[in-house]
Amino acid sequence: MADALRVALAGLGTVGGGVIRLLDANRDLITRRAGRPIEVVAISARDRTRDRGIDLSRFAWVDDTSALAAQDDVDVVAEMIGGSDGPALTLARATLAAGRGFVTANKAMLAHHGLELAELAERGNAPLKFEAAVAGGIPVIKGLREGAAANAIGRVYGILNGTCNFILSKMEAEGRDFAEVLAEAQALGYAEADPTFDIDGIDAAHKLSILASIAFGTRPAFAAVQAQGIRHVLGADIAEAAALGHRVRLVGLAEAGPHGLFQRVHPHLVPFDHPLAHVTGSTNAVVAEGDHVGRLFFQGAGAGEGPTASAVVADLIDIARGVAGPPFAMPAALLAAPTAADSGERRGRAYLRFTVEDRVGVLAEIAAAMRDAGVSIESLIQRGVTVEGHVLVAIVTHEGPERCVAQALERLRGSQSLAGQPLWMPILG
Amino acid sequence: MADALRVALAGLGTVGGGVIRLLDANRDLITRRAGRPIEVVAISARDRTRDRGIDLSRFAWVDDTSALAAQDDVDVVAEMIGGSDGPALTLARATLAAGRGFVTANKAMLAHHGLELAELAERGNAPLKFEAAVAGGIPVIKGLREGAAANAIGRVYGILNGTCNFILSKMEAEGRDFAEVLAEAQALGYAEADPTFDIDGIDAAHKLSILASIAFGTRPAFAAVQAQGIRHVLGADIAEAAALGHRVRLVGLAEAGPHGLFQRVHPHLVPFDHPLAHVTGSTNAVVAEGDHVGRLFFQGAGAGEGPTASAVVADLIDIARGVAGPPFAMPAALLAAPTAADSGERRGRAYLRFTVEDRVGVLAEIAAAMRDAGVSIESLIQRGVTVEGHVLVAIVTHEGPERCVAQALERLRGSQSLAGQPLWMPILG
Repeated sequence: MADALRVALAGLGTVGGGVIRLLDANRDLITRRAGRPIEVVAISARDRTRDRGIDLSRFAWVDDTSALAAQDDVDVVAEMIGGSDGPALTLARATLAAGRGFVTANKAMLAHHGLELAELAERGNAPLKFEAAVAGGIPVIKGLREGAAANAIGRVYGILNGTCNFILSKMEAEGRDFAEVLAEAQALGYAEADPTFDIDGIDAAHKLSILASIAFGTRPAFAAVQAQGIRHVLGADIAEAAALGHRVRLVGLAEAGPHGLFQRVHPHLVPFDHPLAHVTGSTNAVVAEGDHVGRLFFQGAGAGEGPTASAVVADLIDIARGVAGPPFAMPAALLAAPTAADSGERRGRAYLRFTVEDRVGVLAEIAAAMRDAGVSIESLIQRGVTVEGHVLVAIVTHEGPERCVAQALERLRGSQSLAGQPLWMPILG
Repeated sequence: MADALRVALAGLGTVGGGVIRLLDANRDLITRRAGRPIEVVAISARDRTRDRGIDLSRFAWVDDTSALAAQDDVDVVAEMIGGSDGPALTLARATLAAGRGFVTANKAMLAHHGLELAELAERGNAPLKFEAAVAGGIPVIKGLREGAAANAIGRVYGILNGTCNFILSKMEAEGRDFAEVLAEAQALGYAEADPTFDIDGIDAAHKLSILASIAFGTRPAFAAVQAQGIRHVLGADIAEAAALGHRVRLVGLAEAGPHGLFQRVHPHLVPFDHPLAHVTGSTNAVVAEGDHVGRLFFQGAGAGEGPTASAVVADLIDIARGVAGPPFAMPAALLAAPTAADSGERRGRAYLRFTVEDRVGVLAEIAAAMRDAGVSIESLIQRGVTVEGHVLVAIVTHEGPERCVAQALERLRGSQSLAGQPLWMPILG
């Protein structure tokens, strides 16, 4: 039996605790699969005294987290602190610079500093792995980086935030509105007290920028992701989408085209016959479209102690087995700086919802704005549904450039007929 | 740039030709991802003169396929000949014994000789990879062997044969019967002239035995797979299943339990809300249930030139990157010889369909046989549907041991009331 792989854990929250519990539960199995034991030798977290329900006395406690990088008896540091900068980044830099392996679930850090960390990993000949950073327990990083490696990828997209999908599914199943369901999700622990990162699409955007980098051979470009979350989706939008044969899902989508890299997180209408339409609750799912393999679909738990720990330990097993390979699927020096594609040129169908005053001439004004901007209307529905005294008008456009829809909305800006911001959602094609 | 990975291709049918075309199409991309070029240096096939639409003059042609194993300028042999024994097996043994890598899409060979080949690979310190052998382009071998490696797997199951799923989907969509749709599938090239391996579940059983080995750390045990195909499924069964909220799918399922390893390929009723129910056409899909990760779901193209070539080249890229690891997820010496679990003890709900004479007392006879065997009936439907002058009776049982259902069917054997063999299908729980 080869020597154990010696691991230091930084951060002992849900994920860190889960890693210890998983390694305890499946110790023998993991040793057989990894070809050697995987042993936690040191731990570090903010609060030494908190009861985590695990016997931590068998591990060396290190007060200064960043010191884990320099411990001679450590082969790999697994970081589960979180945060794009601060202690997690300090630890990542120091660990990789010291030539030690680094495993992380930290999507924000990779989205912002992925290129730098990949360069450090290569320079130090140290593995850098982050399966847990995207879509929790689903091996989608591995699926893209290795499983689909023979393919030029056209698009990669998916449901990357379990909180949003939980909320949208619940709004759909129970016909309720966003604010109410969010409050319930917070009470149940499915949403954070400050849910901004989740519901405004930031978390999904972090993950999307990592997937895009691997899929397209570009540097992670979080700043270029257009992100809009689900705050403005009404129960009535979900009902209207259903009547049109669609479900509303927060989809992160990246596409490489002749005009550059397009990355967007936005609520979409997804047709019933698309696999993403059947992803409910806090489940995540990712689709990758390859030029030879066609459409690959991965689905599973996107968060939670067990699934996230499963992904972290899978990375540790890879390292124990001696599995190498560049973090973003090709050497950092070959990753291109992406040009952000202009979304105005994108063609597609779209859903538009207006909240309007209930009076003569409103529909004519909307229809005229569409016509003048060159937007062709496939269907327009006003069902007499009222929200706070206003009427909802839903429009589905024919396929056309997004630029035209944006122009139509611009023409309507400030109109006395509109009682609030219109909601635009692309229809997944 | 490191030296090229030098590959010999054995077999130039659809898959072999596809590998050459893929390597040509994505040469630069693959070189960047693999860290070195992947070059075909030699080829061998039965017929040198056949026009394959590819310029083969740039490769060294080798008449004796088995000689590829001994060529000093070859690092890896990719075998796409097929067949569990014969030239493919000779080549595999010789290649691995010579310490060269071996990549194959040959599920039959792995199902029958997987243990021996894994042992040879370990002895020769040579990579043995077979992503293309199961579920075509879907990276499910990698997903199980690496992505889910931290988990004890409870069950692994899925739709493993595209031909059967194509036929069942078409029967479902068009309300037609098996023989008619099979003939059409053969005319379209979706089914072989001799479709036995596909429609009788043998091909799915080969694949299931490979998945089970990886999931449960057991030796591939093809002989222990209970296999029944889709020949006996009527259009009326599919309609009845739909009325009950289910679709009929040929599911290969392996489960590790206290009584041993259970492996079966059989048509199942799959509830509408299960992801497998939405897998249509020749698509494949695999579910793995891990103790920490929960339910992982992989879906994609299960066959065809592009997807299969994608999987073969993914294996070559892994080898070029220096990715190691045991073929069946743990060293061959640690793979346990599985005990086959007795299916009689399995508990579940089931669908039973009887084709009966249209006369007094038939239902009473069936109901009595069920009662006497201890089978509890959840619903019994006789809709007046006649097939060739006979009447169909469909029963759904409450959950209970399969043994009891088998006893009930045994009691009815030879009954003058039955116009043919009853069809039993488990309901996926």
